[in-house]
Amino acid sequence: MEAEATPFVEHLKLVKLEGFFPDTVPFHAFSGSYNGSTTHKITVVTNGKDHVYATGADNCGTVPAAMVAFLALTKTTDADLLINAGTCGGFSAKGAAIGDVFLTTAVAHHDRRIPIPAFDAYGVGKLETKMQSMTLQLADVLQCKLGICTTGNSLDKTDEDVKQMLANDASVKDMEAAAIAWSCALHNVPFMGLKVVTDIVDGNQPTQDEFLENLHAASQSLQQALPKVLDYVLGKEHGAL
Amino acid sequence: MEAEATPFVEHLKLVKLEGFFPDTVPFHAFSGSYNGSTTHKITVVTNGKDHVYATGADNCGTVPAAMVAFLALTKTTDADLLINAGTCGGFSAKGAAIGDVFLTTAVAHHDRRIPIPAFDAYGVGKLETKMQSMTLQLADVLQCKLGICTTGNSLDKTDEDVKQMLANDASVKDMEAAAIAWSCALHNVPFMGLKVVTDIVDGNQPTQDEFLENLHAASQSLQQALPKVLDYVLGKEHGAL
Repeated sequence: MEAEATPFVEHLKLVKLEGFFPDTVPFHAFSGSYNGSTTHKITVVTNGKDHVYATGADNCGTVPAAMVAFLALTKTTDADLLINAGTCGGFSAKGAAIGDVFLTTAVAHHDRRIPIPAFDAYGVGKLETKMQSMTLQLADVLQCKLGICTTGNSLDKTDEDVKQMLANDASVKDMEAAAIAWSCALHNVPFMGLKVVTDIVDGNQPTQDEFLENLHAASQSLQQALPKVLDYVLGKEHGAL
Repeated sequence: MEAEATPFVEHLKLVKLEGFFPDTVPFHAFSGSYNGSTTHKITVVTNGKDHVYATGADNCGTVPAAMVAFLALTKTTDADLLINAGTCGGFSAKGAAIGDVFLTTAVAHHDRRIPIPAFDAYGVGKLETKMQSMTLQLADVLQCKLGICTTGNSLDKTDEDVKQMLANDASVKDMEAAAIAWSCALHNVPFMGLKVVTDIVDGNQPTQDEFLENLHAASQSLQQALPKVLDYVLGKEHGAL
C-alpha cells in the first residue's frame, strides 16, 4: 500500500520517475542507486490510489498487481529480480505468528476454481521460485521463515477458500503474489516474495480487525527486512542470482 | 476463448497483426475493415493459450482479460468502443435461458471481498455502462435482453459468491467483464458487454457440464449477434456513440 512504500522510498532517497508508466494508469515509480552503488539500480513501483471507482482506496488485488509488475518489467528491460514486498496472513498450523517475515518458495491461487481439465491447473497457477538455493541461503541470513504463498482477491476467506489454501500447502496468504509472479514469468525475470504477517488466517479474529491492528508494526518489520534482502542480493555476482 | 474467436476472424477476413502486442504476452490481434468500410476499422484481440503454467488452457479470468484490453487500448489510441463478446452464466430468476443474448448495463465483481471502508466498494468495483441510451436501442434492434454482469475468477460458485452476485443484482455471470471494463475506464473508452448464456447459475446442473455442453451453440449464437451489433454501432455517427 502507498503509505507503507513511502518510508522506504524516502529512506533510500529514490526519485519519482515521471513518464515511467503510461498516463492511463494510476501507478507510481521511484528509482535510484542503492547505498551509493554505481552498478545496481533499484526501482520501487506502487499501485497508486483508485480513481476508476472513485473510492480513493489503494489499488489492490491481482489485476493492478499483475499490471503494475508487467508494465514495470516492460520498461525495465534489464531487471535482474522483482521483489514483491508486502503484508500477508499467516497460518499458525504452519508455524506463522504475527510479525513473522516469510520468503516465498512458491505461489498459487486459491480463488480461481475452474473444474475443467487443464483449466483446473491453470486456475491454481502454481509457480515455484526460480532461485530456490538463493532463497534458502537468504532465509538463513534474515533468520526468517520459508513457505508457499497462496493468493486471492478477498481479504477474508470462505470455507472453499480454506480448502484451496490447504491444497496449495500455504504458509502465508496474500492478495497479489501469484499474479505478480505470472507477470515475472512472462518476462522471464525471477520473482521473490517477502511477506510480513499481519493476521492469522486459521485464527479466531476477523481478518480485517487483525490486519488493521498490525499493519503499522508489520510495515516497520518489512522496512527492516527489505534493506537486508537488498544487501544480500546486491552483494551477489549476477550469475549467482 | 481462441476457438470461438476464429470463425469470426475468418468470416471478416481479418489479418493477424504481428508486433501489435509485446513479445512477452501470449495475446493475439487481428485487424481489418468491416464489410468494406473505408472509415471504420475493427481489431479483434484474444488472450491466447497459457504457457506460463504449461497447461495449454485458454488464458481466462480477470488478470489476462484486464491486461489484453489495456494493452490493446494502449496500442489503438483512436478506439471508439470496446466490445467484450463472450459466454456467461445466466440467472433464471432474472429471466435468463440457455442461448439468450445479453447486453450488459453494468459490471461488478463478486469475489473481491475487502471489508474495510472504501476498500469494500473498490472490491465490488461496479461500473455502469457509459452508453446507456445506445445500449437500450441496440437491445431493441437485437431483440436481446439487458442486465448487469457479475464477474469472478471461478467457473463455479460458493454460497458467498451467490450472496455477492445477488447483491450485485446480476442477470449474468462471467469471468472477465468487470476487469475489462476497468481497463476501458483507465483509457476512457466505452465498454460494451455482449454475452451469450451457456449455463444457468441458479439451476441444478454443475456449471462445467452445462458450460461444455452449450459452449458450441452459444458461440454460434454469438457469431450471429456480433455482426448485428457492428452494423448498428458502425452505422452511427461518432457523436452518437
